[in-house]
Amino acid sequence: MQHYPKHYCGVFGIFGHPNAAQLTYYGLYALQHRGQESAGIVTSDNGHFNEYKGMGLVSQIFKGEALSELTGNMAIGHTRYSTTGSSHIRNAQPLTGNCRLGRIAIAHNGNLTNAAQVRDELEAQGLMFQTTVDSEIVLNLLAQPTLGGHDNNLIETVRRIEGAYSLCILTERELIGVRDPHGFRPLSIGKVDGAYVLASETCAFDLIHAEFIRDVEPGEIVVIDKNGLRSIKAFPEHQRRAFCIFEYVYFARPDSTIADRNVYKVRVEMGRELAREHPVKADLVIPVPDSGNCAALGYSLESGIPFEMAFVRNHYVGRSFLQPSQLIRDFDVRVKLNLIGNLVKGKRVIVVDDSIVRGTTSKSRVNNLKEAGAKEVHVMVSCPPHMNPCVYGIDFPDRSKLMAANHSLEEIRQYLNADSLHYLSQDGMVKATGLPKSNFCMACYDGNYPVKYDSMVDKHIMERRVGKPHGLGEELKKEELQKQLL
Amino acid sequence: MQHYPKHYCGVFGIFGHPNAAQLTYYGLYALQHRGQESAGIVTSDNGHFNEYKGMGLVSQIFKGEALSELTGNMAIGHTRYSTTGSSHIRNAQPLTGNCRLGRIAIAHNGNLTNAAQVRDELEAQGLMFQTTVDSEIVLNLLAQPTLGGHDNNLIETVRRIEGAYSLCILTERELIGVRDPHGFRPLSIGKVDGAYVLASETCAFDLIHAEFIRDVEPGEIVVIDKNGLRSIKAFPEHQRRAFCIFEYVYFARPDSTIADRNVYKVRVEMGRELAREHPVKADLVIPVPDSGNCAALGYSLESGIPFEMAFVRNHYVGRSFLQPSQLIRDFDVRVKLNLIGNLVKGKRVIVVDDSIVRGTTSKSRVNNLKEAGAKEVHVMVSCPPHMNPCVYGIDFPDRSKLMAANHSLEEIRQYLNADSLHYLSQDGMVKATGLPKSNFCMACYDGNYPVKYDSMVDKHIMERRVGKPHGLGEELKKEELQKQLL
Amino acid sequence: MQHYPKHYCGVFGIFGHPNAAQLTYYGLYALQHRGQESAGIVTSDNGHFNEYKGMGLVSQIFKGEALSELTGNMAIGHTRYSTTGSSHIRNAQPLTGNCRLGRIAIAHNGNLTNAAQVRDELEAQGLMFQTTVDSEIVLNLLAQPTLGGHDNNLIETVRRIEGAYSLCILTERELIGVRDPHGFRPLSIGKVDGAYVLASETCAFDLIHAEFIRDVEPGEIVVIDKNGLRSIKAFPEHQRRAFCIFEYVYFARPDSTIADRNVYKVRVEMGRELAREHPVKADLVIPVPDSGNCAALGYSLESGIPFEMAFVRNHYVGRSFLQPSQLIRDFDVRVKLNLIGNLVKGKRVIVVDDSIVRGTTSKSRVNNLKEAGAKEVHVMVSCPPHMNPCVYGIDFPDRSKLMAANHSLEEIRQYLNADSLHYLSQDGMVKATGLPKSNFCMACYDGNYPVKYDSMVDKHIMERRVGKPHGLGEELKKEELQKQLL
Amino acid sequence: MQHYPKHYCGVFGIFGHPNAAQLTYYGLYALQHRGQESAGIVTSDNGHFNEYKGMGLVSQIFKGEALSELTGNMAIGHTRYSTTGSSHIRNAQPLTGNCRLGRIAIAHNGNLTNAAQVRDELEAQGLMFQTTVDSEIVLNLLAQPTLGGHDNNLIETVRRIEGAYSLCILTERELIGVRDPHGFRPLSIGKVDGAYVLASETCAFDLIHAEFIRDVEPGEIVVIDKNGLRSIKAFPEHQRRAFCIFEYVYFARPDSTIADRNVYKVRVEMGRELAREHPVKADLVIPVPDSGNCAALGYSLESGIPFEMAFVRNHYVGRSFLQPSQLIRDFDVRVKLNLIGNLVKGKRVIVVDDSIVRGTTSKSRVNNLKEAGAKEVHVMVSCPPHMNPCVYGIDFPDRSKLMAANHSLEEIRQYLNADSLHYLSQDGMVKATGLPKSNFCMACYDGNYPVKYDSMVDKHIMERRVGKPHGLGEELKKEELQKQLL
Repeated sequence: MQHYPKHYCGVFGIFGHPNAAQLTYYGLYALQHRGQESAGIVTSDNGHFNEYKGMGLVSQIFKGEALSELTGNMAIGHTRYSTTGSSHIRNAQPLTGNCRLGRIAIAHNGNLTNAAQVRDELEAQGLMFQTTVDSEIVLNLLAQPTLGGHDNNLIETVRRIEGAYSLCILTERELIGVRDPHGFRPLSIGKVDGAYVLASETCAFDLIHAEFIRDVEPGEIVVIDKNGLRSIKAFPEHQRRAFCIFEYVYFARPDSTIADRNVYKVRVEMGRELAREHPVKADLVIPVPDSGNCAALGYSLESGIPFEMAFVRNHYVGRSFLQPSQLIRDFDVRVKLNLIGNLVKGKRVIVVDDSIVRGTTSKSRVNNLKEAGAKEVHVMVSCPPHMNPCVYGIDFPDRSKLMAANHSLEEIRQYLNADSLHYLSQDGMVKATGLPKSNFCMACYDGNYPVKYDSMVDKHIMERRVGKPHGLGEELKKEELQKQLL
Repeated sequence: MQHYPKHYCGVFGIFGHPNAAQLTYYGLYALQHRGQESAGIVTSDNGHFNEYKGMGLVSQIFKGEALSELTGNMAIGHTRYSTTGSSHIRNAQPLTGNCRLGRIAIAHNGNLTNAAQVRDELEAQGLMFQTTVDSEIVLNLLAQPTLGGHDNNLIETVRRIEGAYSLCILTERELIGVRDPHGFRPLSIGKVDGAYVLASETCAFDLIHAEFIRDVEPGEIVVIDKNGLRSIKAFPEHQRRAFCIFEYVYFARPDSTIADRNVYKVRVEMGRELAREHPVKADLVIPVPDSGNCAALGYSLESGIPFEMAFVRNHYVGRSFLQPSQLIRDFDVRVKLNLIGNLVKGKRVIVVDDSIVRGTTSKSRVNNLKEAGAKEVHVMVSCPPHMNPCVYGIDFPDRSKLMAANHSLEEIRQYLNADSLHYLSQDGMVKATGLPKSNFCMACYDGNYPVKYDSMVDKHIMERRVGKPHGLGEELKKEELQKQLL
Repeated sequence: MQHYPKHYCGVFGIFGHPNAAQLTYYGLYALQHRGQESAGIVTSDNGHFNEYKGMGLVSQIFKGEALSELTGNMAIGHTRYSTTGSSHIRNAQPLTGNCRLGRIAIAHNGNLTNAAQVRDELEAQGLMFQTTVDSEIVLNLLAQPTLGGHDNNLIETVRRIEGAYSLCILTERELIGVRDPHGFRPLSIGKVDGAYVLASETCAFDLIHAEFIRDVEPGEIVVIDKNGLRSIKAFPEHQRRAFCIFEYVYFARPDSTIADRNVYKVRVEMGRELAREHPVKADLVIPVPDSGNCAALGYSLESGIPFEMAFVRNHYVGRSFLQPSQLIRDFDVRVKLNLIGNLVKGKRVIVVDDSIVRGTTSKSRVNNLKEAGAKEVHVMVSCPPHMNPCVYGIDFPDRSKLMAANHSLEEIRQYLNADSLHYLSQDGMVKATGLPKSNFCMACYDGNYPVKYDSMVDKHIMERRVGKPHGLGEELKKEELQKQLL
Repeated sequence: MQHYPKHYCGVFGIFGHPNAAQLTYYGLYALQHRGQESAGIVTSDNGHFNEYKGMGLVSQIFKGEALSELTGNMAIGHTRYSTTGSSHIRNAQPLTGNCRLGRIAIAHNGNLTNAAQVRDELEAQGLMFQTTVDSEIVLNLLAQPTLGGHDNNLIETVRRIEGAYSLCILTERELIGVRDPHGFRPLSIGKVDGAYVLASETCAFDLIHAEFIRDVEPGEIVVIDKNGLRSIKAFPEHQRRAFCIFEYVYFARPDSTIADRNVYKVRVEMGRELAREHPVKADLVIPVPDSGNCAALGYSLESGIPFEMAFVRNHYVGRSFLQPSQLIRDFDVRVKLNLIGNLVKGKRVIVVDDSIVRGTTSKSRVNNLKEAGAKEVHVMVSCPPHMNPCVYGIDFPDRSKLMAANHSLEEIRQYLNADSLHYLSQDGMVKATGLPKSNFCMACYDGNYPVKYDSMVDKHIMERRVGKPHGLGEELKKEELQKQLL
């Protein structure tokens, strides 16, 4: 599904378990959908850190001996999203460093909105940076000397950064979880065999038989050490809540539970809402597997139109090295999903999916159905149209490439060659969650950005800031040097 | 799904297309479910053969330059099943050789039942064998001199072998398709851009936009060369039909059509039959994804009980190097399928799958449901119990490991900790296909083997035939040698 | 030294040692100079054969677990030379097969001169071939039924093949060594810990602390089994001897002893002969390391002119992936050997090497010396000029590319830009060995080929034999078939 | 030669050449003997840095596309020595960072003696470190804000560090070379195609046809930019010279010239001195190839005793994965050097090498000679015994493992089982260089360390500094935090 937006990351942490690295590995495995570019694990073993990072999928990176060398009973892990550009092992997380407070490692999900400014300030103080990711700023802030004596770096750090961040931080003796005051990204607390675990999503707890305890609250810092878990509120209360509603719609796994709502159920409910808002006469409801499964089921249940899985997944795609073929029309679509033609022949078909980002894939699918003899094809999308880019950690295309931002509903329908096209409304989407609208960031739908952002903010910022070449030798004046030498 | 039976192979062939190797690659890609151990492609380019074989998945083997070096407008390809034992690149197909008739390559799906005997005869004539697979016997038979003058090797060869075989044979100027007289394994003919294609299943045609023409008939040889396709009937008529019914139940992809029956539809119908035969009061019907999807849908449609996809697949498993964990109970099951616990809490649940071979996986799933709070768990299987091994090309466990062959229904139910356990009847299964029972081989269910077999016949036969060590130097008597030398 | 001729192979065998595979590995390691393209080991363990082959150097192929899986107390091994064309893992040796006499493996050094003819005969009998190497013919001959009863296959086989062959053959209970009646290639017998070993060169014995026993005689078959070693003379006496003199000059390692002559000493003697035949006034004698070391030392000792190692080897070249650079003139030469310029400045220099095959390297070296300020450069070669290709197992260039076959001495001298150029005479070369001229094959120098050869004989013969494409289906006549079927 | 001391590194830099990366690659290739653990190249292309680093040999790291992506006309490169412990890609050089002065990369040869102290100071200022190598301290010092205005960071930096350093620094627009005021390690300036190059040794210039210009002076900084080369003297004059004499004895390549002395000639002269100091009656002088070649030649020339290369190198060792064998006595020695036994049988032999570090290898060699029948074996070493560790960049064993530091000459002779054992004297060694003793650091021989050093200084310092585990959350007092929040 390469045309879909990709999430920045998944994070995981565990404290006080003899198999910390292995459980972190399983946790990352369950969070693989949040990033397939790179992954890493750092463990802390009596003040010594062990780390292993690599490009690719979790299961490809941690082969053979790699895990067994990650000794220690505390660990954090990270999966990172796949894109080109700044895709480099150097940018893989967790990031680690050695400073006056000993070793520190961080894993970050989200996007800082004032990264460039803070980095400029730190560089002016003489700091060097090794990567182009905003997360390195957090790492360096943690190392700064505290000027007063009444507080500590952790609080200083989170007050200096803005935007979206769910963090797992590992020190020589603590696991720390942090969630930004708006709660853009999820972060949950669990427990297994008496050890605390942190994870971006609860599906990671299920795999390791961990018990879900509660979500980290927006603006909360949880410090886990041998004395247990302490909670610190680092911000004044009554901050604007801004949980990313797209996690419910698309990103999170259906088996995760966020803010007490099971994602699968929310999605089925979105399908029901869709059926209520847009009833259409048809013979079949077909999901685009697996992304449209829940909503299609909801649509079928609400409308009474039979549900048929007419698209068959090829289970062996995914991590292939298969090149899109010049030879075969609609190859990208067909290689993943084959249509069972005689199920749809002569039928009026409703196809349900959770998003249309660029449209070429959807167009191929409609084409596929029509060639197989479908009499009508109605396309249903279980969320509203995406109109705006995300600046809080999701890699949507630029606005110029967002279909709905540049074309009317009718234009899109014609492009897709569909008989009708329907999106779920913003209200319908919120209603399906059962939570108040004020809880959410819906900027990608409504343009209402909860935290202001530097217009330059984006993942390539660090790389682009190139002016005239700098040097070291230039300011040296020979006469002054001579004076010194005498 | 490692406990499930594995199919021997998928075969593919194409004649007269400028992109023969690339289309074969896509064809094998679509047939990947028929074998994941190894794959290979051989092309014929003006009498020169190019070949490339490797261990692993099609997409892992044919990277980079490999395909572009497979020049020529004729090709055959093969995917082979995964097991240990004789899993070795040497046994990967297509097998090739150079003989008095030039170069020959073959790709074979099925299992010969008189392999050991024929091989003994050939060895006595002075032939050497390089592999331990029965298919090499076919290759060598093709190279034998014809003793009479009125016939040719092709006919001689198929008359000398017994058992199950669907073959694609490539010579320096022909593509040949062969199906044994009982038609155990499928083989279909298609056409794309004017070129003939052969494939184990029609889903391979869909991916490359080939048109389905017809199935190769049991006992038919089709010779495709520059003059087109000629059909030869190599056997007297009225042979016993014996198509493997398990292809409909389990092996074939749902989007394939065999003997004019779409596999998806047959499976939905099996689910309906199951509901008719075994009505149970319940709140939910849950498929084991994706193997139980069709039958669960059929059960739900027939019974009116709501269909819920409560097991969520992890899309990143499959080709992983993940080791089964000692740490985590039911790990194998959980890592692939996570249960959405609060869907089933307090509910009476029907779980549908297409087979129970060894039972440990099913037991874990029932366990999973009960832990999540399901009130009742009813297990439904969309085919009858497997009682017997297959000798025609499917790698079932030995009878000693087939659960149903050694335990009563009630014992299995207790082992699974299910509230009830139901299998589809043999008649119900046949009825769902809409074809007469006499068309099928159902030996794995009813023990009625259509072709007699050597009791030793199995894939390891060649390796086991070790008696006292042989040698070359033993018979030499010095005095006789001296005479010669004088 | 890529422009130099490459030897076909090195062979090794061992019988009755608990660490057979490991000692074979070390043996191949010591024989690595006889072939760097591929290597393989086959062991025999109570009738079961284990084999492992790969492309590249012995130390690259047998990593990790590979050796430990090669169980059994009998083994043979092979290293193969590097070239393009038929460089393919399929052609790597030992070759193995399974026949009426059980399993057989062979490792072959040399080249058959009647390969094409014998292969045609075998194909006519219905045999298939898997490779394009002549050694497969030997393997298949061994599997043939013996027609009479008084003799055995081994004798039949060696009498049917012609040309150069030193063989190690492994059966389920024997190790067999064979040397052709002319003794073209070396093969020696040793003993370690009570176990017999066979090796192309005695340097392999030194590494494993084996004691040298004797050479296998030309025309001798040695059969080693649990009863010890039996010797069989398969040919009438008084065959023409034809040991390859180039083994002494160039191929064999200086620490090997062949026919009781230590190769190092023979080469020093060649240098002395060179000094006697071609005295030159000079200040320094410089070897091309390491190939010219011995002869340069001999020249220096005989002439009294000081020996200086002015060319310094880079120890890190050899197996590199370094591409010849367009950027750097004489790169190939410089990257391997750097000249210490101020040793030769203003001096008259004699450079000694063991051959000039194509001349570009030598030219670069002279150039190098002149640029560094050498006053005179005299090039000395410790053997006569090569005028003819080898058909007995050495991969010389075609005659058209042999410098001396196409140019006068004076032309070559001018091309090299040397002040003088001298080759050792044929008589001088033979004299240095201390053996009679009649013992040797010197065909590459004198054109006198001891065994006649098919004009097509060369390593690509099997691949080139492509006429009009063959097929299987052609001869089939429908009416005749019908008759059969009735 | 794994028992020998290993040099830390080789450095290379080039400014203003269109093929900067490729020439750096060749330069590193020629400097491979100075480090085989890892290597890296960084280029600067209009303010953008490209880097590629890897573990292993230069030729293994820079395959395929790697070089072509290193665009830009300025580059530095580094090869690093091989050991276990802190052998990690993270520690591979050049090190790079992004700071207020833009991008900076450094490549360092040598060892700082005040690293721990400076690092503590920098950490107290809030800096983080990514590696455990002292070179990162230099990188961070360069990024510090200059507090006065009359000077620059480069001067500040070199005045703050102590010990041994030859540096190549790359900025966005400059190549900078720095050599410590004592001149411990070599660094030379050359020119090719109008572009300046820097290299640890002149042999790197030869390979790329660069002209040698001069050495960088002790205490000199050379800044090379588009305006040419400027020289800065960063230290008062009359610093103690301390060039490492072991570079002449062992480390540098014989084809390099350092301080106007050709290394080969110095080594031959050391052999002559050895013959003058320790005349012995013998029949042969044998070098340990290639390390003892020059000195053995010198000994032979001075003594008149014939030179014989009785040890034959196996050209295929070196980068192998061969495991030292339990099976074979003296395996390590034999696999690299095979003795030609009948050269030494009954002879009195002098063996010459450039060092004896731990002695096991030498002992094996003497053993080897005696087993082959040598009547007497005299061991000659072309430098004095090593008594002390090096703290300026050479990885000698601890004093406890230095043979000569713990045993008398007679004890060592007995251990080696040699008939006599002789080392060159300190004065003889110095005399052979033709330079005054005051030019050299000879601490490893005489214990006279020219620069004081922290007793902890060694390559593992950073890793060992682990006290009680640090943390971030500890100092936080809740009541104070609450005040802040109000």
